[in-house]
Amino acid sequence: MKREFTVKTIGIIHTPFGKPADAPIQGYFEPYAEGTIEVFGEYAYGLADVDGFSHLVLLYRFHEAKPPALVVKPFLGDELKGVFATRSPRRPNAIGLTVVRLLGREGNVLRVAGVDMLDETPLLDIKPYVPNFDNRTDVRCGWLDDALRDGKETG
Amino acid sequence: MKREFTVKTIGIIHTPFGKPADAPIQGYFEPYAEGTIEVFGEYAYGLADVDGFSHLVLLYRFHEAKPPALVVKPFLGDELKGVFATRSPRRPNAIGLTVVRLLGREGNVLRVAGVDMLDETPLLDIKPYVPNFDNRTDVRCGWLDDALRDGKETG
Repeated sequence: MKREFTVKTIGIIHTPFGKPADAPIQGYFEPYAEGTIEVFGEYAYGLADVDGFSHLVLLYRFHEAKPPALVVKPFLGDELKGVFATRSPRRPNAIGLTVVRLLGREGNVLRVAGVDMLDETPLLDIKPYVPNFDNRTDVRCGWLDDALRDGKETG
Repeated sequence: MKREFTVKTIGIIHTPFGKPADAPIQGYFEPYAEGTIEVFGEYAYGLADVDGFSHLVLLYRFHEAKPPALVVKPFLGDELKGVFATRSPRRPNAIGLTVVRLLGREGNVLRVAGVDMLDETPLLDIKPYVPNFDNRTDVRCGWLDDALRDGKETG
């Protein structure tokens, strides 16, 4: 099995968040924060038909993340957790995932709401958000259930 | 901006699907299909605390995808669509996303349900699935709304 491969930046995400302290922990906490996604011209044809979708999944590079760690202190808690039980940027591959609302498109630029990434974030992929595929009910969220219930959302 | 970077395989996903024709289009269509995720030993400590979560988001490499294309014919329809309006594997970065149900963990091996990827798929990331972050309501799905309604799920 191939143990490494190369991924390419396919665009840039512009947001109001110039530094980590400005950005919300998740888009959920600032659903109205607007940004734009500039898809590089060579990928623009791939945006055909996205206009019909109200929500998109963005995959992107956590380009200013600290080095990866297997155990991290999450934003929403004080105790160390395994990185795969958190949404911390300090993941082995530093790939982030955010669901945004699509507000409009002009050519190769998408206007979206619910951004939580830093300005100038490198975009890796855009997928249509499909509730049948991506929504789950009857979900347990371990330590995060407690953290969210305790109102540590802004912690 | 850095236009390329390297990602590392952090594990292997084992599923019952040896070839593309065997795999469901999405885990949604075969929610009981079970698989195992073998996280390489060097990342095992990152799995601490995942047991508390009922669902996980897997990011993985579409390792047997045909070459990328900007316009593709999706599994669920007969007309060409922009690749970013589909979940086709033929994406510029060939990264797949599936939400699975966590059935159990033994050391560095997770047993999960709802797999739709091929056997031996290279794993890139595991994130906890958090409804507050990842669920959306009032969603429109463009051409896919029609395709799913028309019962072309198996097309």
